[in-house]
Amino acid sequence: MTVLRIAQAQMPVYTDIKQLAGVLKTLAEQAVQEKASFLTLPEMFCCPYDVSSFPVYAEPQGGPVWQICSDIARSFHIYLSAGTMPEQDENRRIYNTAYVFDQDGRQIAKHRKMHLFDINVEDGQYFQESAVLTAGNKVTTFETGFCTMGLAVCYDIRFPELFRLMALKNARVIFVPASFNMTTGPMHWELLFRSQAVSNQVFIVGTAPARDINSSYISWGHSIVTDPWGNVLSSMEAGTELRITEINLEECSRAREQIPVLRHRREDVYTLKER
Amino acid sequence: MTVLRIAQAQMPVYTDIKQLAGVLKTLAEQAVQEKASFLTLPEMFCCPYDVSSFPVYAEPQGGPVWQICSDIARSFHIYLSAGTMPEQDENRRIYNTAYVFDQDGRQIAKHRKMHLFDINVEDGQYFQESAVLTAGNKVTTFETGFCTMGLAVCYDIRFPELFRLMALKNARVIFVPASFNMTTGPMHWELLFRSQAVSNQVFIVGTAPARDINSSYISWGHSIVTDPWGNVLSSMEAGTELRITEINLEECSRAREQIPVLRHRREDVYTLKER
Repeated sequence: MTVLRIAQAQMPVYTDIKQLAGVLKTLAEQAVQEKASFLTLPEMFCCPYDVSSFPVYAEPQGGPVWQICSDIARSFHIYLSAGTMPEQDENRRIYNTAYVFDQDGRQIAKHRKMHLFDINVEDGQYFQESAVLTAGNKVTTFETGFCTMGLAVCYDIRFPELFRLMALKNARVIFVPASFNMTTGPMHWELLFRSQAVSNQVFIVGTAPARDINSSYISWGHSIVTDPWGNVLSSMEAGTELRITEINLEECSRAREQIPVLRHRREDVYTLKER
Repeated sequence: MTVLRIAQAQMPVYTDIKQLAGVLKTLAEQAVQEKASFLTLPEMFCCPYDVSSFPVYAEPQGGPVWQICSDIARSFHIYLSAGTMPEQDENRRIYNTAYVFDQDGRQIAKHRKMHLFDINVEDGQYFQESAVLTAGNKVTTFETGFCTMGLAVCYDIRFPELFRLMALKNARVIFVPASFNMTTGPMHWELLFRSQAVSNQVFIVGTAPARDINSSYISWGHSIVTDPWGNVLSSMEAGTELRITEINLEECSRAREQIPVLRHRREDVYTLKER
């Protein structure tokens, strides 16, 4: 199958678990009605994006929000890129973790944000994820009934090495739950998605929280899908929206045949490797 | 010194050496008058961009066009990024070679295009550089009185590995003589310059030939300067023009302090190395 429909949920943050479960159910229903095979959620859809909140809402893999996500995927027989949530491991370390569930509710991918978001823009955004979070250390790709796919989180998209490594592992679609802000959003959001898409000739699906001007960290929104030519296939505004985008995986092969950059890489001159 | 002025010459191809010498002299005069410290020329400014022409116009390092360029740099006491010309080595191999001369006319950098341009876009551009050219195999950075700089040629800009390696060698300004075409120009020219600039927080100076609709390969023009934030500082149209752009190298440090991506690279997870 080469054509797939992706439903991106640009949604507010829900911290109440019951309410969250209801909202996700409604979203999944709509996605299935629209014949989507994938439903994607934003970064930190169940926790305010705020260093002091991460420890409060953190749960182990298999915890309550994880369970709701798995149940939704299974009940609606839909792949679910379950945005990210704070994950706490057995050593009390906390990660910004993305999970993907298949249509049977099985976890088929897990990516802990690899590059922590520590920035301090003059007259703009300040944030220090590393104050409470631990970084992941794995490049994440996974198999689906469609093709190999990849998974990264927000700030990870600034790092060409990570996206190249996913492409070299044959990822053709990369999910990026992300929450840019009112400084980095207008400056770099679209540019970075287009940039990693064209360099690696992959589809990239960036799903952001809806904007809430009363939160301490204000999301830029603008959930996006970019194609292997670097085109923007879909771009939302800042509000709550469920958007369906159809992608044709053959565009990946077409781009790679016509401008074969992956084949033209000079592995005799430089090497890029996962350690 | 942190502010420098760059004069980019978007010029037609001159195959007549006497005429070329005159044109370059005029351009250098104007550049110096405008207080530019650098003059940049396009890819293949002295040879039609055409595989059958490369062998005809190829010359060894130190050949007649090289000599004109060195003389111009010395006479006008200006740094010259002398676009590219076909270079023939002692084994009759031909390269698409960029030279840079300092204000004393000394060659301080040489980059042989590392990624050869072999593309075949459906209903669009076809080109096979590798039919006659040999690829270079070195990442090129060089010292100037301002900072470390880098050098790449056209299609090289599609390869994040090369630009990252130049940035890791501390390049803050990268010169890219380039000639995109009527297919890849509108699709990818600006995107790729902005993309490598923002990923590596460097200035990139892309200088293209003026458009000639009667040539077999039609240049997109649009000579460009992008800054370390991924902004377009200057963008020409398609015609002949000498454009001065002032850049402030402190923007490089500011970008790298405020969004420290180079420091955030996960060298414990992936390695990128020149062999």
